[in-house]
Amino acid sequence: MGTIICTGLGPGDPDLISVRSDRLIRAARHVAYFRKAGRPGQARSIVEGMLATDVTEHAMEYPVTTELPFGSAEYKRLLASFYDDWAMRLATLAATTDVVVLCEGDPLFYGSFMHLQSRLHGRADVEIVPGINGMTGCWNAIGIPITWGDDVLSVLMGTLPEDDLLRHMQSADALVVMKTGRNLPKVRRALERAGRLSDAWLVERGTMPDQRVVRLAETEIAECPYFATVLVHGRGRRPETGE
Amino acid sequence: MGTIICTGLGPGDPDLISVRSDRLIRAARHVAYFRKAGRPGQARSIVEGMLATDVTEHAMEYPVTTELPFGSAEYKRLLASFYDDWAMRLATLAATTDVVVLCEGDPLFYGSFMHLQSRLHGRADVEIVPGINGMTGCWNAIGIPITWGDDVLSVLMGTLPEDDLLRHMQSADALVVMKTGRNLPKVRRALERAGRLSDAWLVERGTMPDQRVVRLAETEIAECPYFATVLVHGRGRRPETGE
Repeated sequence: MGTIICTGLGPGDPDLISVRSDRLIRAARHVAYFRKAGRPGQARSIVEGMLATDVTEHAMEYPVTTELPFGSAEYKRLLASFYDDWAMRLATLAATTDVVVLCEGDPLFYGSFMHLQSRLHGRADVEIVPGINGMTGCWNAIGIPITWGDDVLSVLMGTLPEDDLLRHMQSADALVVMKTGRNLPKVRRALERAGRLSDAWLVERGTMPDQRVVRLAETEIAECPYFATVLVHGRGRRPETGE
Repeated sequence: MGTIICTGLGPGDPDLISVRSDRLIRAARHVAYFRKAGRPGQARSIVEGMLATDVTEHAMEYPVTTELPFGSAEYKRLLASFYDDWAMRLATLAATTDVVVLCEGDPLFYGSFMHLQSRLHGRADVEIVPGINGMTGCWNAIGIPITWGDDVLSVLMGTLPEDDLLRHMQSADALVVMKTGRNLPKVRRALERAGRLSDAWLVERGTMPDQRVVRLAETEIAECPYFATVLVHGRGRRPETGE
């Protein structure tokens, strides 16, 4: 009886993988990873050169990514069927051997693996190894503390309605906005309305050799990858009424 | 000319240190770490057994931790003087050799090292290696995804006024509350007022052998360490108006 081990890969630099995940990945006989069809896949790229020569690879290719609205019935049906299928295939494999699932960042922080985890409950042993999440890689790429003192940090998705974004941008001290991509004009408008655009950074591929770190206000918005992250640093708030 | 290298140690399990930090720590000739006077120190404990036999250790002992109010002039004066002193000592060391500074979690996320970093600007080369932050260790100890879909995550300090806590607890989907300790009764009241107490977890020493994971509502509050973390999971929000 094997185990399905989901290893967090961290933000992109393979040197930032944990000692435990590094050991598991190098020893794996079966690895599985998500990717967009026709692409090498970010998770697979991170472990390039680390896999054993006799490893068996299982590319779990999303049936759809941004082609359909996330909320549509067809999107949900396709994704549910995809996760059902791979949960069954991984559980079958795990009946006889260990399988290492490679996940960018930290698996329990906005990760896709959770859709397999919920389906594998009672069908296979699952172990999760945490990783450095992507936003941590982004603020390390900038090199300035994201939070200190009693700062409130809010993590927002660019897919949220503009007024929701605005409300959180006004009430938190430090901000991280993920899933920007084609939502970036909206994110930028919300930051401007909140008076925080001049403090915002845009980071792409944080910790990777080709990382890009720019001030959002100085950025041409036309070409912005889906996984670019927007960050605003806290200023070290101290509460008026301390204890 | 040496470098001051701050390595993030992650949440506590030494197996979760990054490959890069692990290599730097084992090769270090000089290591420095913060601790409360008279204690071994959490950072130092994490690397037990990893340091070279001829390493020189520099214990940076806080002149005060919770004995004085954080906002008081005396607290600020003592801490500023402490950081001034250690910035000078590390810069002097770095004139001739590398120094590895050990920091729990991720150094740029509510870490103490930033107070040295700002003072070392222009006086020494500083490099920071990210780590898995403590809250990631906590939600991995529970084993349930902290966020998915378009969940908003807010990270709050227990030192904030109760009404500030309440406001954020009402507007975010997923919550992490750090620096609980003697603020825990207040944090619990705010969660109850926000209708979220029954979904709250308390995690101590996440990822460490003696970790404790309990439902906050079922917990005796009398003895709660300063670094216990409260978590409430998101439920996978989807915006009504998607794009």
